[in-house]
Amino acid sequence: MADIEVRKYTADESVLRDLFPGGGIQFIHTENVTFAAWSFEAGTRVPAHTHPHEQITQCVAGALILEMPDEEIVLHAGETAVIPGGVEHGARADTASRGVDIFHPVREDYKKLGGEDK
Amino acid sequence: MADIEVRKYTADESVLRDLFPGGGIQFIHTENVTFAAWSFEAGTRVPAHTHPHEQITQCVAGALILEMPDEEIVLHAGETAVIPGGVEHGARADTASRGVDIFHPVREDYKKLGGEDK
Repeated sequence: MADIEVRKYTADESVLRDLFPGGGIQFIHTENVTFAAWSFEAGTRVPAHTHPHEQITQCVAGALILEMPDEEIVLHAGETAVIPGGVEHGARADTASRGVDIFHPVREDYKKLGGEDK
Repeated sequence: MADIEVRKYTADESVLRDLFPGGGIQFIHTENVTFAAWSFEAGTRVPAHTHPHEQITQCVAGALILEMPDEEIVLHAGETAVIPGGVEHGARADTASRGVDIFHPVREDYKKLGGEDK
């Protein structure tokens, strides 16, 4: 029955800490989507990278700076970015910040790290 | 080039108001995912319904009560629920609350309402 029931996650489960130093990220993997709720201390950096997955990033509190090769986009609380698959991007938090990332399809690379079951 | 560039959405664009009385919902539809950032006043209700889409709901502020036929699940800030496709659910906000929903595949029914371009 597990597949047809609603599953609740508290804020402190399935969290990977220091995947990026200063950051805690809760990963929830469904059949088709990876949901990541992140909490970054000031100074947390996500190095530039690419992936084929579509990404949606919303900043919920503080601010996140998205770093593309030729521009930066600042997301303040309530602001959202859509990053198409294959687009190089990194990110940094100059102040403490929280937000969510959504990926499609599932980030199998993160799933292997075991965030969901910790 | 639109498809391969990062697109930023401010908090006040693409918002549908009073789809559910007392609620404002920003819809962002990508190729595979619908992202909905909602802001509910106290008393907002989403009637019971089903859809074949997978759904992830995170409460960001306040609390959201998910109403299933035989149980209620309360999501406080930072708490998340995964609702498999086909599972009947409604929701209500007894206090002002904010959060996000993610749907896969795209909610074509909401896309038709034009939220993205308002």
